[in-house]
Amino acid sequence: MRVIVDAMGGDNAPIEIVKGALEAIERSKDLNVVLSGRRAEIQPVLNGVSERIEILDAEDIIAFDESPAAAVRNKPNSSLVIALEALKARDDVCGLVSAGSTGAVLTGAFMKVGRIKGISRPALAGVLPTVTGGNVLLCDCGANVDCKPVNLLHFAVMGEAYARALGVENPKVGLISNGTEEGKGNALTKEAYALIADSGLNFVGNVESRELLSGNIDVAVVDGFDGNLVLKTCEGTAISIFSWLKQSINVGGFRAKLGAMFLKPALKSVKHTLDYNENGGACFIGVEKIVMKAHGSAKSASICASILQVAALAEADIIGNIKKRVDVLKAEIGD
Amino acid sequence: MRVIVDAMGGDNAPIEIVKGALEAIERSKDLNVVLSGRRAEIQPVLNGVSERIEILDAEDIIAFDESPAAAVRNKPNSSLVIALEALKARDDVCGLVSAGSTGAVLTGAFMKVGRIKGISRPALAGVLPTVTGGNVLLCDCGANVDCKPVNLLHFAVMGEAYARALGVENPKVGLISNGTEEGKGNALTKEAYALIADSGLNFVGNVESRELLSGNIDVAVVDGFDGNLVLKTCEGTAISIFSWLKQSINVGGFRAKLGAMFLKPALKSVKHTLDYNENGGACFIGVEKIVMKAHGSAKSASICASILQVAALAEADIIGNIKKRVDVLKAEIGD
Repeated sequence: MRVIVDAMGGDNAPIEIVKGALEAIERSKDLNVVLSGRRAEIQPVLNGVSERIEILDAEDIIAFDESPAAAVRNKPNSSLVIALEALKARDDVCGLVSAGSTGAVLTGAFMKVGRIKGISRPALAGVLPTVTGGNVLLCDCGANVDCKPVNLLHFAVMGEAYARALGVENPKVGLISNGTEEGKGNALTKEAYALIADSGLNFVGNVESRELLSGNIDVAVVDGFDGNLVLKTCEGTAISIFSWLKQSINVGGFRAKLGAMFLKPALKSVKHTLDYNENGGACFIGVEKIVMKAHGSAKSASICASILQVAALAEADIIGNIKKRVDVLKAEIGD
Repeated sequence: MRVIVDAMGGDNAPIEIVKGALEAIERSKDLNVVLSGRRAEIQPVLNGVSERIEILDAEDIIAFDESPAAAVRNKPNSSLVIALEALKARDDVCGLVSAGSTGAVLTGAFMKVGRIKGISRPALAGVLPTVTGGNVLLCDCGANVDCKPVNLLHFAVMGEAYARALGVENPKVGLISNGTEEGKGNALTKEAYALIADSGLNFVGNVESRELLSGNIDVAVVDGFDGNLVLKTCEGTAISIFSWLKQSINVGGFRAKLGAMFLKPALKSVKHTLDYNENGGACFIGVEKIVMKAHGSAKSASICASILQVAALAEADIIGNIKKRVDVLKAEIGD
């Protein structure tokens, strides 16, 4: 298994990225990593030569504030574009990890790797923790605004294949809506409901966003604008709750401070559960190879988690499974 | 000041509703309350006669599972319809509180009280707490799915008038979007952005839902489908965090349990901050009188808070201010 990593993408590149790659090959003996970027900056972090790490020279870097399409077109020697071209060209590479600009990674993957035939729009699938100790996939969590019903059907198909690749048997697919009854929703979700209900997936119908982290569903299907809203509301609410708790502790006198001291490991564990940085990245599914977008501020632990996740998804043949499902859909509903 | 209260609406009607009315007249000496509902059930809770409480006889009740429009049409003797008709007809009544079916309250208010001329669609404005100790209005938080840009402009106008009525000077209005840059958004929010930017409001532009509870904005403008998603994601995330914390405490041994014991008041205070039940209701703004939807499970404290909020909004002449702003809009942008 060989994963290519954009060594220059992200706030902490290249040091944390390269460290993450080293952690990943340490953790998985069958894994090889290809790093794209500036050899002079990567080599010192590697601290020696490993036959399981290869460097692809790339001198340019795409910054977070560049226009994605223009950057991908105009910087053929950037670490991201070099990585994407190798991903497309090389059969020995199963997927890619980048902590660079989300727009550039998505646009680049679309332009350079290409989408799976039959998938109308690739989507960004985020992995969130649930209170039952599992995960829920939020798909799409930001790649596509202004979706059509068929896009949501494809998000459901891809999210389900992703959940299966993560080891979930017969994943429960829910459609995020403003109420659970079948008639609830906006024009988009009402039409999408009918399509997904006919798709042969294990569709549990409409689900309120209140239920997202409850563990009741494995895949939450949503338009990318709304998925982004939901994801960032989760994040903002968590930040706010910890801020309120801190305020209450500060005005709560000795008793509260003592309590906080004793409760610190428990509070830390909850923060850890919610930490993007520890939970790998979001997968851009629907392109011909596995593309994992790590958080821009990712440190080595997160990069390592992302690399291992790409390897696991490749092992489970997520791309092949999406293609099979697309073929079934075409046969079943003539799409 | 006289507020009419649907005494039979809600899970805890009529007992908690009537108790809430009694608490409200106790708290505000200038306040009178009109209760609509079954006299035989209301009278015992009143426990004596107050000249500041009037009862309007209404024998029927609209249940939560009834079709809103049909229920409003077919149950002229329901506590809600009787209340709405009195609200429309009587100049001495400034507003209404109901903890009944949201659909019935909204549909009923629209049909029986009528919308303000120039407002395309009334909206449900929810009041959320912020980490800086203030509030943010989420407008629309669920009344209108499939909005047009002009609807969002009107949500901004009404939300701003609401924030002013709550005592905020020059309220900061933000448009919920998937990024802060001006070009971000979906087709709906991009067009709405241009309209709101031209409206003369204190518009701070696009705001991510991550910022909702930060205290950076006073009014968050959003389509009702998305507002519902955001509201319920806040709720679900809060529930999940407390659930994770409980799990961490349970596996954290003696130390964690001791910490939880000492920290209990602080944890309770955060839960209290987030409690719907204590924070009054959501105002249905854009109809000709003030209509406050209390939470279905509201107890007396919440009903009391809702009644007092209606009185405060009437005191601040929120309806008059919305009308003035609509006139300015018409003159300015020819809408």
